Amino acid sequence: MRSATCTAPVNIAVIKYWGKRDEELLLPINDSISVTLSEMYAKTTIVASPEFDKNRIWLNGEEQTFDSPRILNVLRQSAGLASSAAGYACLVYTLATLYGLQDRLELSSIARLGSGSACRSVYGGFVQWNAGTKPDGSDSIAVQLAPSTHWPDLEILILVVSDNRKKTSSTGGMERSVKTSPLIAYRASKCVPERIQGITKAIQDRDFETFADITMKDSNQFHAVCLDTYPPCVYLNDVSHAIIDLVHRFNAASGRTKVAYTFDAGPNACLYLLRQDVPQVLNLVKTAFPNDKSSSSDYLKGIPITEEPLPESLSSAMNLEPIGHNLLKYIIHTRVGEGPQILPETNSLLTTSGLPKSN
Amino acid sequence: MRSATCTAPVNIAVIKYWGKRDEELLLPINDSISVTLSEMYAKTTIVASPEFDKNRIWLNGEEQTFDSPRILNVLRQSAGLASSAAGYACLVYTLATLYGLQDRLELSSIARLGSGSACRSVYGGFVQWNAGTKPDGSDSIAVQLAPSTHWPDLEILILVVSDNRKKTSSTGGMERSVKTSPLIAYRASKCVPERIQGITKAIQDRDFETFADITMKDSNQFHAVCLDTYPPCVYLNDVSHAIIDLVHRFNAASGRTKVAYTFDAGPNACLYLLRQDVPQVLNLVKTAFPNDKSSSSDYLKGIPITEEPLPESLSSAMNLEPIGHNLLKYIIHTRVGEGPQILPETNSLLTTSGLPKSN
Repeated sequence: MRSATCTAPVNIAVIKYWGKRDEELLLPINDSISVTLSEMYAKTTIVASPEFDKNRIWLNGEEQTFDSPRILNVLRQSAGLASSAAGYACLVYTLATLYGLQDRLELSSIARLGSGSACRSVYGGFVQWNAGTKPDGSDSIAVQLAPSTHWPDLEILILVVSDNRKKTSSTGGMERSVKTSPLIAYRASKCVPERIQGITKAIQDRDFETFADITMKDSNQFHAVCLDTYPPCVYLNDVSHAIIDLVHRFNAASGRTKVAYTFDAGPNACLYLLRQDVPQVLNLVKTAFPNDKSSSSDYLKGIPITEEPLPESLSSAMNLEPIGHNLLKYIIHTRVGEGPQILPETNSLLTTSGLPKSN
Repeated sequence: MRSATCTAPVNIAVIKYWGKRDEELLLPINDSISVTLSEMYAKTTIVASPEFDKNRIWLNGEEQTFDSPRILNVLRQSAGLASSAAGYACLVYTLATLYGLQDRLELSSIARLGSGSACRSVYGGFVQWNAGTKPDGSDSIAVQLAPSTHWPDLEILILVVSDNRKKTSSTGGMERSVKTSPLIAYRASKCVPERIQGITKAIQDRDFETFADITMKDSNQFHAVCLDTYPPCVYLNDVSHAIIDLVHRFNAASGRTKVAYTFDAGPNACLYLLRQDVPQVLNLVKTAFPNDKSSSSDYLKGIPITEEPLPESLSSAMNLEPIGHNLLKYIIHTRVGEGPQILPETNSLLTTSGLPKSN
């Protein structure tokens, strides 16, 4: 009997992956760059034994039918907060641990076959996925630009937005974008390369304002391409746009860029900011989006924050007023995090006979 | 004493004007094409007399300070439903009538100086504004592609959406787009010319599906460019997007494109459709957006419609359900309309002494 239990982190792109040049091999049309988050990860246990007579898999405690395309879809749809990338990266990393494979580049390439952006979740810190040009995908690989320790005061607030619209899956959306958006090829060939260069330097130099500026512009352009898709893919809602507007007003009133937003294929905002600004920005968010649950212990998840009031001069300069009640579900506070981890046996999700411990 | 009272119509672009190459002369970076509407127009009376000792102007019954940049701004901000274009076109047309100027091309060029798209409101039917290339703007002129009688069964429903967000003015928005959007130049130089050609032919051939397809794609791309602007300009809200989604689901369930949406710099939808489909589409809209006022006589403005229920097969095929209550303020039903009109003296808004009749 062999057993391995591992975690793999969520990553949030600052230069977005949108559009495949190969649907089978999940090869992208442009490079992307992401930040690996602390606090948010997938966890997987795999138990293998010659005595087991079949493969069984549980996802969030529920057993799934184990046939390959189906389970891929299940993982893909395990939805929200970039969890499918972490889920695939974790599955691959745990398998690799079980069988003693150690080549991180190879793991990354395998994870990519589950969900494109999963290839970035096998590294901590700042990660670049090079699109590559080869038809076999051998040069479409993710590499670490800088470890998590490189920029210790970069932090992240995730604003989870209430939303119950049906949305286009990112797989379906990006396929439609490639087929129908007249702007996507121009973005991939002209806009992204400049931004990759600019944000790489900003990360190296820990230049927050440039990092923030490029991050926001690229998020907007990704959603612009989604809107240029036919029929359009719409992932941002009125609350997302209110957050965008709030960030711009806060930065303008602050006289410099203190906060950057980025949005994946959904309405939740991921805010990048420096540690020193977190206590006031939490206050900003709570003032703009008052919530009946905001004093509850699980409204703010992740790393605790000692909230600080905004200076009166700032809130009056930006005309800060409540935008609406209960528009956010909760907030998560994270930092730049490590890559996948191997956990001690005590953390196993399965018994030695390969069944879920909670069952 | 001389007096003239005229109307000039609202026009709604199907290929959008967005971005100036010259802010003073209001010269655009791309051609645009619009449809002139019936039922919706501005009305202006000008009275001139050697006995008047000063210029006075009333806008919607309220006197305005008559200094040129101010009044321009007032007209520009008279807001909503493309009314500033109609307002400027009407002002210029009425002045021209008063002084006996008849060159329509010249009127169009003068109207353009008030509000770019006003140059299209001096013609009825289908109108193209050629961007031109000359620095003095002499080739940036609007011409009629086809008169209003050309496509008699093309009709329009305008869905006025409830909204109270502050929005970026279109003047400010397009200036920011030209300065900051990496995609706008590509749109203007590569996408728009193809669409101008395609939709011109569709209009000539009365090919509704192609007309509708290009109209929707161009509306989406215009708003994509707005989102690619930094900070982004956002004119569509969740209700606008729900309308977009409804139209696509209706067309898909119908097996052909029966309805096209287009949105200007605001959340209101302008739907183009054929006369035969108006009664059912009104039912579609009322079912998706139920309204407490929907039986009131002023909920449906413009040309009356005898509503027809949607076939049960269609509404079940598209999973039609109410999206939300009171999300629309009212609906306007129009057709393709005539250009500016000179009205008989009895329609004058002013007395012979130059004061508002209602005062």
